[in-house]
Amino acid sequence: MTSTSEFDAAQALSGNGPVFGAVLDGQWDGIGITNGGFLLALATRAIGQLVAFPDPIAVSGFYLRPGVPGPVEISAEVLRSGKTTAFGQASVSRDGKELLRASAAFSDLGAAAGRGGLSYDGSEPPDQPPPGQCLELKRATFPPITLVNHLEYRCAKLPFWAAGGAPSGRPVYEGWMRFVDGREPDLLSLLMFVDAVAPAVLEVGAGTMSTVELTVHLRGRPAPGWVAFRTQTRYLADGYLEEDAEIWDSGGRLVAQSRQLGIVLR
Amino acid sequence: MTSTSEFDAAQALSGNGPVFGAVLDGQWDGIGITNGGFLLALATRAIGQLVAFPDPIAVSGFYLRPGVPGPVEISAEVLRSGKTTAFGQASVSRDGKELLRASAAFSDLGAAAGRGGLSYDGSEPPDQPPPGQCLELKRATFPPITLVNHLEYRCAKLPFWAAGGAPSGRPVYEGWMRFVDGREPDLLSLLMFVDAVAPAVLEVGAGTMSTVELTVHLRGRPAPGWVAFRTQTRYLADGYLEEDAEIWDSGGRLVAQSRQLGIVLR
Repeated sequence: MTSTSEFDAAQALSGNGPVFGAVLDGQWDGIGITNGGFLLALATRAIGQLVAFPDPIAVSGFYLRPGVPGPVEISAEVLRSGKTTAFGQASVSRDGKELLRASAAFSDLGAAAGRGGLSYDGSEPPDQPPPGQCLELKRATFPPITLVNHLEYRCAKLPFWAAGGAPSGRPVYEGWMRFVDGREPDLLSLLMFVDAVAPAVLEVGAGTMSTVELTVHLRGRPAPGWVAFRTQTRYLADGYLEEDAEIWDSGGRLVAQSRQLGIVLR
Repeated sequence: MTSTSEFDAAQALSGNGPVFGAVLDGQWDGIGITNGGFLLALATRAIGQLVAFPDPIAVSGFYLRPGVPGPVEISAEVLRSGKTTAFGQASVSRDGKELLRASAAFSDLGAAAGRGGLSYDGSEPPDQPPPGQCLELKRATFPPITLVNHLEYRCAKLPFWAAGGAPSGRPVYEGWMRFVDGREPDLLSLLMFVDAVAPAVLEVGAGTMSTVELTVHLRGRPAPGWVAFRTQTRYLADGYLEEDAEIWDSGGRLVAQSRQLGIVLR
């Protein structure tokens, strides 16, 4: 791990809060617009500066305007600080116009893990070979998606847009993911990872999509190494779709669950 | 349908906004605390007074404090009003202390439905007999849950706490639901319906749960009649669980998808 990873450098906050500055540098984009998960991580990072707990556990963001690159202002506030949970909110604005309104709950997942108690795991990690036996997915073949320059993907089976052929009709993508520069996953980067896979809805013939709302639940601090992902759409109608992502760490533990409501763009 | 249904009467807003008054009357509670979905519907109703679109499509609420019955103040604001989508926020407070911070996107699902375009339905409605051939589930056997006095439930198979016996180990509940007073479902009531089923996590031995965050995506205006529901938990660890609810209208159309992050209480 380098002293400052690409991700953390790109998310550098200036100022002491509660209003912070940052720059959307155009290097974390999907088709000219800053990745929604990247923006959500930035807002959550700002809230994290103000609250007494280390770990975001639930984050929801509403995307008011496209995240066009440039300097932004992030105005964060604490809504409530309780004994085990703190709540905060952040607004990300560019030229005085709000791009994102994000709310978050924070807690201490380390302390939570020590408490033990009931457990149940009905999650179903992808049934896929280890990363070294998978195919490399070059997402950079979609030219203007700068985000993917920072990430490596491995898949047991390539999507139609990488392998050639027609959409499968089955809107599910599975695989492995990690940062190119060796930065290990953490909770903030999971907020971006859940939104860093190509839209599964491409497999039913959609062009691209725009996010209205994205919620992420963070269920555990991820172990180092590749993360396994599944991104899936179950319902598309009247131009709206939901996309669920799940992420498991290298130890096979479910560490993130996300859902977004999107609008299909032609 | 009566002139004013129980639900709408209990959600009456006073004032012209953007600050409204309301009363949590203790008749929509789970164990002494106002149902979280009911509160989310109340906040969304207030936002709806201020925006130019009729239909909430995505709503997220963070539960800062328990919704103890009594008079509340709801402070709503419009965050952005766009061509097809408006965004708003509301804060529900009691005695000056914030109980809920809710954000919502609104649009016009009627206009959206007319646009046609791609569709995909991978949702899996419960495989269950019609309501008339199902068993009546009397949730009122849990004494202090006043919410259930307003709702009827039908299930193909009763949960262990109604039928006797031990938890099944399978945290899924399916069935039918409607208002007792004949009020038909709409988008606001779906916000409560997603949270009006007993926690599926009871089936793996949990006591009850408290909601940290609840997101609801509303996918279509429901047809009149019974709605079919499924409530499911896939992952419980370190005291946290997610609970997903899906609701289909009487025509078999998926009309709501929700997810909440909860904390297990003993």
